[in-house]
Amino acid sequence: MEMKKKLSGIFAPITTPFVNEDVSLEHLKANMLKYRNTGLAGFFALGSNGENKSLAEDEKLKVLEVVLHEKAERQLLMAGTGYESTRQTIAFSKKVAEMGADFVSVVTPSYFKKRLTDEAMTGYYIDIADAVSVPVLAYNAPGFTGMTLSAKVVEKISQHPNIVGMKDTSAGNMSSYLDVCSDDFDILAGTISTLFTAMSLGASGGVVSLANAFPNPCCELYEKFNSGDLVGARQLHFRLFRLNRSVSGSFGVAGVKYAMEVGGYYGGDPRLPLLPLSDDNKKDICNAVAKAGL
Amino acid sequence: MEMKKKLSGIFAPITTPFVNEDVSLEHLKANMLKYRNTGLAGFFALGSNGENKSLAEDEKLKVLEVVLHEKAERQLLMAGTGYESTRQTIAFSKKVAEMGADFVSVVTPSYFKKRLTDEAMTGYYIDIADAVSVPVLAYNAPGFTGMTLSAKVVEKISQHPNIVGMKDTSAGNMSSYLDVCSDDFDILAGTISTLFTAMSLGASGGVVSLANAFPNPCCELYEKFNSGDLVGARQLHFRLFRLNRSVSGSFGVAGVKYAMEVGGYYGGDPRLPLLPLSDDNKKDICNAVAKAGL
Amino acid sequence: MEMKKKLSGIFAPITTPFVNEDVSLEHLKANMLKYRNTGLAGFFALGSNGENKSLAEDEKLKVLEVVLHEKAERQLLMAGTGYESTRQTIAFSKKVAEMGADFVSVVTPSYFKKRLTDEAMTGYYIDIADAVSVPVLAYNAPGFTGMTLSAKVVEKISQHPNIVGMKDTSAGNMSSYLDVCSDDFDILAGTISTLFTAMSLGASGGVVSLANAFPNPCCELYEKFNSGDLVGARQLHFRLFRLNRSVSGSFGVAGVKYAMEVGGYYGGDPRLPLLPLSDDNKKDICNAVAKAGL
Amino acid sequence: MEMKKKLSGIFAPITTPFVNEDVSLEHLKANMLKYRNTGLAGFFALGSNGENKSLAEDEKLKVLEVVLHEKAERQLLMAGTGYESTRQTIAFSKKVAEMGADFVSVVTPSYFKKRLTDEAMTGYYIDIADAVSVPVLAYNAPGFTGMTLSAKVVEKISQHPNIVGMKDTSAGNMSSYLDVCSDDFDILAGTISTLFTAMSLGASGGVVSLANAFPNPCCELYEKFNSGDLVGARQLHFRLFRLNRSVSGSFGVAGVKYAMEVGGYYGGDPRLPLLPLSDDNKKDICNAVAKAGL
Repeated sequence: MEMKKKLSGIFAPITTPFVNEDVSLEHLKANMLKYRNTGLAGFFALGSNGENKSLAEDEKLKVLEVVLHEKAERQLLMAGTGYESTRQTIAFSKKVAEMGADFVSVVTPSYFKKRLTDEAMTGYYIDIADAVSVPVLAYNAPGFTGMTLSAKVVEKISQHPNIVGMKDTSAGNMSSYLDVCSDDFDILAGTISTLFTAMSLGASGGVVSLANAFPNPCCELYEKFNSGDLVGARQLHFRLFRLNRSVSGSFGVAGVKYAMEVGGYYGGDPRLPLLPLSDDNKKDICNAVAKAGL
Repeated sequence: MEMKKKLSGIFAPITTPFVNEDVSLEHLKANMLKYRNTGLAGFFALGSNGENKSLAEDEKLKVLEVVLHEKAERQLLMAGTGYESTRQTIAFSKKVAEMGADFVSVVTPSYFKKRLTDEAMTGYYIDIADAVSVPVLAYNAPGFTGMTLSAKVVEKISQHPNIVGMKDTSAGNMSSYLDVCSDDFDILAGTISTLFTAMSLGASGGVVSLANAFPNPCCELYEKFNSGDLVGARQLHFRLFRLNRSVSGSFGVAGVKYAMEVGGYYGGDPRLPLLPLSDDNKKDICNAVAKAGL
Repeated sequence: MEMKKKLSGIFAPITTPFVNEDVSLEHLKANMLKYRNTGLAGFFALGSNGENKSLAEDEKLKVLEVVLHEKAERQLLMAGTGYESTRQTIAFSKKVAEMGADFVSVVTPSYFKKRLTDEAMTGYYIDIADAVSVPVLAYNAPGFTGMTLSAKVVEKISQHPNIVGMKDTSAGNMSSYLDVCSDDFDILAGTISTLFTAMSLGASGGVVSLANAFPNPCCELYEKFNSGDLVGARQLHFRLFRLNRSVSGSFGVAGVKYAMEVGGYYGGDPRLPLLPLSDDNKKDICNAVAKAGL
Repeated sequence: MEMKKKLSGIFAPITTPFVNEDVSLEHLKANMLKYRNTGLAGFFALGSNGENKSLAEDEKLKVLEVVLHEKAERQLLMAGTGYESTRQTIAFSKKVAEMGADFVSVVTPSYFKKRLTDEAMTGYYIDIADAVSVPVLAYNAPGFTGMTLSAKVVEKISQHPNIVGMKDTSAGNMSSYLDVCSDDFDILAGTISTLFTAMSLGASGGVVSLANAFPNPCCELYEKFNSGDLVGARQLHFRLFRLNRSVSGSFGVAGVKYAMEVGGYYGGDPRLPLLPLSDDNKKDICNAVAKAGL
């Protein structure tokens, strides 16, 4: 059996730009043209910061087209394809695979959380991985879904040849997951706030929203750690941790989008019902960026 | 200003029948032909028990067509139209209103729960009610969404002329909501387990999954209470409470669907990743029905 | 076997008065002399509002002495005796029984909540009931303890001849408990906010903090319900519900103590680390009392 | 101003041995005579694993006497002195300080958690630190208390000259706390499962229950990390993480006590209502120890 492809580095879970609530492919393209010259290993499109759940399917497909077209060839694309039913997720994952996405990243379903037992969740990921031609990543996002993948599910799905890794944004489960997963299963930290400790434990990299606004410092943290500069990595960790708390931690997607503007990208507002930031909120972010010295 | 239409009685949050994962409109029609001769005041289609979040939009529209066509004229239709973004919800609600649904029932968005402040939630419901021609019901379902509507939001939206009521499946908030809502805002208990106490407090009726399988006993509880037979209502409450705990309480949608088979309707399995019941689970439900003496 | 003594009516979970952090037996006595002429069926001393966990054991004994001495003979005394270990709880319960308390009310232990299985909790209450000469009440207080008694535990312990009832302050479990408990097990609502619905379901009365400040209106709600005046009871329910939300609901023990001052009793401050109310907080309570028209 | 004393190394949160529910000072002494020849930097007596909340105060004092008498002189003693009220905690802390404890370790109060605001918690620790002659450690134990210290509280209390550090058993807050605390404030990981990542971030050591049974491997992890052997430390981390999950993670204090027996110490049963382990539970622990190769 073939070994799974090795994932590593920093991925940006790119946002979906809106102008007056319409998806703006022009702004998306402009952002991508800047990202292609960064150290980013790739992109997670249509994730939480991409407001996946707030988009219609035709909008999702257009977003992917632009990203696929504009990213550098060396950069990989993970496309968020999770729906609540196995059937919907497979159908959309197949479309996305045909378009050329390198991975599908499948967030846990969550609506029926009381009945989504370990058996149901394991079956879900295996059914998808059996049906889809590109490799599958699990996406564990309890802050959004209210569902946490158990270590047992991770252990089982990690052994499937077409389930190659996961993005984990939960707090404090990294050791559990790394302890039980197969050797060729790559776990990526889901936020810059845990990247440093995740890498200490053996994680392969991160898919971190701060990289949407400040890709290079995030890549620098990854590099510093990998080059053995623990002290430097730790210092940078705390600088980025503090900044991230004032951006995504305080304001979610709207915060990430405004930080992108500070960082030289198009941000714009999130789609309603998410509210735009107030001027005071924006000032807080500006101050946090200034303090971080980026 | 016109008074809001008065909602009352028992509504069935009908399930969506599947055969081999495909929506079966035939089975849905057959169920409806039985329901039209019951005491049900109407239906909530495409709710949680309708597996709304597991359906594609074209499937949803076909379900609504059948229900609209087969229900008795006196019976009302609430259609579940909630998506995660205001834009999607409005777009789908408009389609549904044109088809002839009496109400749209809009579950709270939940993915970005950390940023769905009272202000965001109030704005969400008001934007929808302003844009849609049929009256809007809120749907508070923390067991599924992890989001609970605050009393402040209920207070504000209840004053909008086109937001006429809500289905509440939360535990222990009924007094808070009834305390603050406007006088012409109808609150419906979201489960048979709370119908009796909700009516004691002033709720207008219920949208209760047990009515999918056993509509008449659920209507009987409503009637007994309304006719002033408190002792009889309480006794029936405990019988149905106990049964409901063994059906929806233990097994969710899959349990409701199997209870429907026991009650003489088509149930079938839920869509994956929800798993079908085991034979033992089914026996538990049969026993509970037998004990309830229905 | 003898039938259990029937509990009914409204009990005040009396506060422990402090002057400069010292227990003030004088103020306690003065409060009791007023309470003895109310319709209160009795008292729960050393409960949550009695700041049980903030008192040394010798202070607890002195409080009980005063209450036993000053209450009317017809009024019953429940004494809070729960500690974290079976051994401590039994030892203190025995002392209290010898002093003449009518019941011991034993809050669930909670520190080791992860290991307090149904088996452990059942054993706990049975060990105590076997060892103590006065009847035992369970006290379910998840808002303080983070522990909720399961219906299975309630079912089992309710069958013990010396476990005669429980105070329940949880949200939405009353039907579950009443459904499974033995016929001679009395369940008391733990707050005025749920007294009305609890009585609709068959609860025997209430132990409600609002009765510390306004005993007669609380007794009136109980009487109205019992005399069959549902409409009057419901109206009074909403008046007291709203008031309670502004007192205990907003400020806990400190709020209850200040409401006592408004109601003509000695309140004072809670023991540190609980903070005294601000002037604004106090104004809020005054306004809420005025609105309630008491 | 004097610098705070520097805490570092591995501390054992020693258990309290019982024989038939009575504290056994003999067994405690025997354990201590073994511990004094290990690499342990000291002890946390009367913590969660010491079943603090299940002991009477005279029992607590006797435990401390033995520990103070039998530990090696180089080993430090932290004594758990937290009660629910400031008054009780100060009174007991003073006794303990007079006996010769090096630190008092004060768990957060939790019974009135809804009213224990940041202001209340900051006041609590500062009042204690002002009143007690020995340095104070905070103890953050949400798994037991349901309370989590906010970063704001940690920031403020860390600046008090007599509050010198904290034991943190929460999941995922280490970066937040280290980010804001003063430079001379020592944070200790509260479980072996997080020691490795905590030290990566700058924690000073750990107070870890696995050290009750296997002190030397725990100390070895600390040493490996400090000597710069990251790869070795990570490998040992995963071995101990896995073992710990099968001991404290699965069975709490009862598991720790049985692991102590496997490790050559006296364990015994916890005090009721905590139940003793079954034979199967014990076998699980034996197997986990064997697999860990200790």
